[in-house]
Amino acid sequence: MKILLVGASGTIGSNVYDLLNKNHEIVHAGRNGADVQVDITDEASIRAMYEQTGNVDAVINASGSAGFAPITELTPEKNETAINSKMKGQINLVLFGLPYMNDGGSFTLTSGVMMDDPIPQGSSAAMANGAIRSFVKSAAIEVPRGIRINSVSPSLLQESSERIGHLFAGFDPVPGGKVALAYQKSVEGAQTGQSYEVY
Amino acid sequence: MKILLVGASGTIGSNVYDLLNKNHEIVHAGRNGADVQVDITDEASIRAMYEQTGNVDAVINASGSAGFAPITELTPEKNETAINSKMKGQINLVLFGLPYMNDGGSFTLTSGVMMDDPIPQGSSAAMANGAIRSFVKSAAIEVPRGIRINSVSPSLLQESSERIGHLFAGFDPVPGGKVALAYQKSVEGAQTGQSYEVY
Ligand SMILES: NC(=O)c1ccc[n+]([C@@H]2O[C@H](COP(=O)([O-])OP(=O)(O)OC[C@H]3O[C@@H](n4cnc5c(N)ncnc54)[C@H](OP(=O)(O)O)[C@@H]3O)[C@@H](O)[C@H]2O)c1
Ligand SMILES: NC(=O)c1ccc[n+]([C@@H]2O[C@H](COP(=O)([O-])OP(=O)(O)OC[C@H]3O[C@@H](n4cnc5c(N)ncnc54)[C@H](OP(=O)(O)O)[C@@H]3O)[C@@H](O)[C@H]2O)c1
Repeated sequence: MKILLVGASGTIGSNVYDLLNKNHEIVHAGRNGADVQVDITDEASIRAMYEQTGNVDAVINASGSAGFAPITELTPEKNETAINSKMKGQINLVLFGLPYMNDGGSFTLTSGVMMDDPIPQGSSAAMANGAIRSFVKSAAIEVPRGIRINSVSPSLLQESSERIGHLFAGFDPVPGGKVALAYQKSVEGAQTGQSYEVY
Repeated sequence: MKILLVGASGTIGSNVYDLLNKNHEIVHAGRNGADVQVDITDEASIRAMYEQTGNVDAVINASGSAGFAPITELTPEKNETAINSKMKGQINLVLFGLPYMNDGGSFTLTSGVMMDDPIPQGSSAAMANGAIRSFVKSAAIEVPRGIRINSVSPSLLQESSERIGHLFAGFDPVPGGKVALAYQKSVEGAQTGQSYEVY
């Protein structure tokens, strides 16, 4: 399959790349993507990306940001990061990507454990994660031509523990290789509308 | 208690009003609110509302819109209605309302069944509903001074069946009075971080 992987250089994306690269052609996308450049917060940039890639058999997104702030310090402005990136960015990858998706192809988005097992300062990220899970569940019943759409909700990755583990007290970090399997299941399996939770 | 009820004139809001009006002082808000005017899609309007109401013991939101469109026709522009109203509107009611909330008070937001039992054309609404549920769950662990926050996810109301029932094939509509009980449980009960699903 020809798989467009947005965020291929990231912590999750590189694990997905390593797993899927064996049997598929991966188009590596990101703001500094090796194959194609895209900023998912910019609609025109997403459109330009698809014009460059042409048709694909799968789109995986492993990028997306959110602001962290205590709820008493969260402002609409700080909330915009998650809205523009994790939420609208991912949804627009689907909306603009549908015409470029081959019959029977799949979209796989990324949410995260904070929607189910919340942590301090995480309300904005939880909002975006919950939005993605429900959007995916709903979009799945309508996407045409046998196209499928799922999301993966990773817990804290072992590879991210040193950097952000202090925010996730008592979490049992999961290996990136295990998280990558959920993306493989979404792409190579046959389910749709799922939230694959790797907790 | 002094309860600020945004959307008091609506299908859900009027049921909530009828139930809670017996034992509480209700401040009736909406774009054409009897007591105070507010447009939840407008940050300045929310701030002005709270300046008018002063401190409250509970905020209930029973308003919020979303655009309906098949996923193949959903555009970022159409998606903005749900983002600005159901999602940001409700979240900003919390962010701006926290300083006006009395100790031990509560926020109760509204999501909806479409996030769990999706219908055609409902992806944008499902997105906003899922965002609200997860935001509430996360914010609940951080709001200060014993403040609580829950959301209610109603199924299709009997009172709305004639107007929108054709979109909800096979749904068993619930009486508005039953939905109102979930808001009462949120306000007069002691739980927090809940999504009360009235399906
Ligand atoms: N790591 C974890 O433990 C964990 C757990 C649960 C959920 N998640 C979620 O998974 C996603 C990825 O996390 P990660 O830790 O793998 O992130 P990461 O290591 O920071 O990598 C992010 C990747 O996305 C690309 N990227 C960043 N912003 C972009 C944009 N605006 N447009 C296009 N590409 C962009 C980056 O490449 P460029 O710099 O070239 O753009 C990079 O390849 C995030 O949504 C995160 O919240 C992560
Ligand atoms: N009815 C159902 O079957 C059902 C089921 C599940 C979920 N829901 C959700 O519950 C919420 C309320 O639904 P409903 O059917 O009760 O709606 P509704 O009958 O249309 O009533 C909406 C209420 O909100 C007020 N309002 C509308 N836009 C507003 C704004 N921008 N700012 C402030 N107030 C505003 C309206 O008063 P003004 O005109 O004075 O502003 C009115 O009081 C919606 O989010 C809906 O999606 C409804």
